[in-house]
Amino acid sequence: MQGAIPMSDAKIRRPKAETPKGFRDYFGAEVTERKAMLDAITGVYHRYGFDPLETSAVETVEALGKFLPDVDRPNEGVFGWQDEDADWLALRYDLTAPLARVAAQFRNDLPSPYRRYAMGPVWRNEKPGPGRFRQFYQCDADTVGSGSVAADAEICAMLSDALEVVGIPRGDYVVKVNNRKVLNGVMEVAGVLDPSDPERFTHERGIVLRAIDKIDRLGDEGVRALLSAGRKDESGDFTKGAGLSAEQAEVVMGFVSAKRDSGAATVARLRELVGASVIGAEGVDELEQIADLLDRQGYGPDRIVLDPGVVRGLGYYTGPVYEAELTFEILDEKGRKRQFGSVAGGGRYDDLVKRFTGQAVPATGVSIGVDRLLAALRAKGRVGGDSAGPVVVTVMDRDRMADYMGMVADLRNAGIRAEVYLGNPKNFGNQLKYADKRASPVAVIQGGNEAEKGVVILKDLILGAKIAANATLEEWKDRPAQVEIARADLVAEVRKMLGQ
Amino acid sequence: MQGAIPMSDAKIRRPKAETPKGFRDYFGAEVTERKAMLDAITGVYHRYGFDPLETSAVETVEALGKFLPDVDRPNEGVFGWQDEDADWLALRYDLTAPLARVAAQFRNDLPSPYRRYAMGPVWRNEKPGPGRFRQFYQCDADTVGSGSVAADAEICAMLSDALEVVGIPRGDYVVKVNNRKVLNGVMEVAGVLDPSDPERFTHERGIVLRAIDKIDRLGDEGVRALLSAGRKDESGDFTKGAGLSAEQAEVVMGFVSAKRDSGAATVARLRELVGASVIGAEGVDELEQIADLLDRQGYGPDRIVLDPGVVRGLGYYTGPVYEAELTFEILDEKGRKRQFGSVAGGGRYDDLVKRFTGQAVPATGVSIGVDRLLAALRAKGRVGGDSAGPVVVTVMDRDRMADYMGMVADLRNAGIRAEVYLGNPKNFGNQLKYADKRASPVAVIQGGNEAEKGVVILKDLILGAKIAANATLEEWKDRPAQVEIARADLVAEVRKMLGQ
Repeated sequence: MQGAIPMSDAKIRRPKAETPKGFRDYFGAEVTERKAMLDAITGVYHRYGFDPLETSAVETVEALGKFLPDVDRPNEGVFGWQDEDADWLALRYDLTAPLARVAAQFRNDLPSPYRRYAMGPVWRNEKPGPGRFRQFYQCDADTVGSGSVAADAEICAMLSDALEVVGIPRGDYVVKVNNRKVLNGVMEVAGVLDPSDPERFTHERGIVLRAIDKIDRLGDEGVRALLSAGRKDESGDFTKGAGLSAEQAEVVMGFVSAKRDSGAATVARLRELVGASVIGAEGVDELEQIADLLDRQGYGPDRIVLDPGVVRGLGYYTGPVYEAELTFEILDEKGRKRQFGSVAGGGRYDDLVKRFTGQAVPATGVSIGVDRLLAALRAKGRVGGDSAGPVVVTVMDRDRMADYMGMVADLRNAGIRAEVYLGNPKNFGNQLKYADKRASPVAVIQGGNEAEKGVVILKDLILGAKIAANATLEEWKDRPAQVEIARADLVAEVRKMLGQ
Repeated sequence: MQGAIPMSDAKIRRPKAETPKGFRDYFGAEVTERKAMLDAITGVYHRYGFDPLETSAVETVEALGKFLPDVDRPNEGVFGWQDEDADWLALRYDLTAPLARVAAQFRNDLPSPYRRYAMGPVWRNEKPGPGRFRQFYQCDADTVGSGSVAADAEICAMLSDALEVVGIPRGDYVVKVNNRKVLNGVMEVAGVLDPSDPERFTHERGIVLRAIDKIDRLGDEGVRALLSAGRKDESGDFTKGAGLSAEQAEVVMGFVSAKRDSGAATVARLRELVGASVIGAEGVDELEQIADLLDRQGYGPDRIVLDPGVVRGLGYYTGPVYEAELTFEILDEKGRKRQFGSVAGGGRYDDLVKRFTGQAVPATGVSIGVDRLLAALRAKGRVGGDSAGPVVVTVMDRDRMADYMGMVADLRNAGIRAEVYLGNPKNFGNQLKYADKRASPVAVIQGGNEAEKGVVILKDLILGAKIAANATLEEWKDRPAQVEIARADLVAEVRKMLGQ
């Protein structure tokens, strides 16, 4: 009987009902609240003349390129696999790389400049952590094909509008603007950028960039350490620094803290810092123009400010960079007050399309961290008020299901969210528990007696819950949480109970 | 110099700007029209008490299981890869498998029955073809935890409502309902189902099921061939049949053509066909109940009919199955008239959750083929009328960009979609070509002279295009396509031109 498996060994192994590690599900209001927020944001993008683009989740690895923020692991970070035709495919890790591909692929058909917005999930094959998932939403807007700083200014204004339209009031956020060219000018002055040999010191400049980007977390001293020999963190791990001398580090630190009370003063200070650097002066000019364009549209420093402390970690930015920070305070996991922080960022990247075509195509754009912004709105109590459970029609008599379905149909046709109980109707208590779990405002009840009389009973579940929680016995008696009404009046009476 | 590559060989290989084979991008109206359609459908789902659920694109292969329609290749059809922890992950191929996983994983937290809707892309690793992509949208609604046929009837009614709300008028669609139990009864009568040994003839029944499912394409004779020895198609390829005798095949064909003029007559005919089969009689009873529930809610045979010709290809259905067909005619690629056909389908699947928990959980649901339905709406001219391009403010004087940006800001603040031209402003003709490509209704022009006078010129591009296309020279003169207005009146005058 070779090959036959005894039945007792052929145990059924059941699959585990689990999401893969680092992935999660979104239920009910988590979905509708995010959708409402994205609808509001894209309304702003639309008004600014941006057109939607939806690329597929899958791209060739070749087209995606390696532009993940974590430059220390350039070969990792994506979910990829080999196709039957031996092509390597991967899930997109952001919405910018697919845009660069589209801008190159359709360059003869798209309007130029091309303003597009996109939203949807992106995937990162990274170690998941608390609140850190391997699939998350981004919502981007980019202008491809314009080298004008007006394009950068427009994105900053639009970002400001978008934050306000979703419910972040003016004063609770600030859009910070900086320019990589200014930073490069400072690098020149510090002696880590040689205009006649731009590749030299690339490694050191990368360390400088990432060090500055971490200033909120590491503080001045931490950044200073990373600029010079290196830094040992709390766990004892040592990160090698850029090897700058104390004087060189001082020049860079001067840049980081160059922000002054007014934009004009910041510009003046930056002019001092970049000295004779051509690229630096160009960057300062651009910043001045952006500030001027924004000021004259009414986007003053209460909304958008020049801040040399913002550099953005990504290597591919070539000019203006910007970041939206929420300035109100929340309590962190240890109960300490801290500012909510960054929810969106972007900048100018003039070389991404060039990868494909060989021709430089200037581009600038912003990405909103959808989940972070949604968390901020929740922290401010701006979403999640109305749960809007359905009216539940209970089933007293299984044989009259058509009657109950007729009731929900009447309610729905009047625009009222309603459902009939579809579980086993035997235990009526279960039906009310179900209505409770559904956050139902009203239960409709009709037994045989009521059916004969042509009436139904409406149970006010919101009032009922309030009474159960707070009322004295007297009050309980005085305020009946249920009423008997004519079946013909069902819609009108439910409407009344819902306060419509 | 071993290992050094001469510079001339180190050519830069540029990545190809292409989507992977079988994937595509969606631009502008393609995105907004689909979104509008899905918003309308989910509005109906919401009113029926269904809650949204969004699972991630990635599942474990173990959780997904193998329920793809193409049973001839059970191991293929998904995009999968091995995780760092050696787990196999894959992109979801539909929205039902993730629902089954969620229903098992959260069975103690979810309301029961659980009504949920979901929408989003799914992925199939199949050979792409014309109009057949490897990523496409589905929009599903399912009720998990109810064995009542009222749940099936509700889904059918909701599907009917959803079709009407997106713009398929009554009379242009029909929801066809059938029951797998009736088919099983007929199989019993035909001798290919033995109630005392249900596993026997599984292979034959699979062939029968898929043969019936193809009746629209193959016709009666084609199906009859597949029921008996087999069928040779036009290309000469032979598909092995189920091996039924002529008598057996006749019983099955009698089932397929059992539809009569009224639901009652169809039920009566099916009762004859299933004879003494217990499961068959149960199925006929269920169909009768569904028809009665729907009739009494007003969903008569003008919208929902019993049709034994509908079986649905998927193996996992266990009871009622349903399919929405659009009955209006379109021209196919060869210019022949044909009915548009199926745009949605579903049914009862009582065993999908059981895979995880061991406990049977009854469930029923529908999936709408989003792209097919959208194509139908386009064929009927129900979408795509209004392109709503932005007002384009042109740039005559580069140094006055702030003025132009002030104009678009004024327009936007009044709710008018508007943008400033951000390309190189040197060639004014290019700016008007751009406005044309953007389907802009109005171009705003202000040179130095106009600026001094405090006026702007509005160019009516829609009128201009019409005149250019149709007008005589006299008309052209009489109807100036551009007017000079005060800068202060910009918003009011643009509104007038837009007919707002």
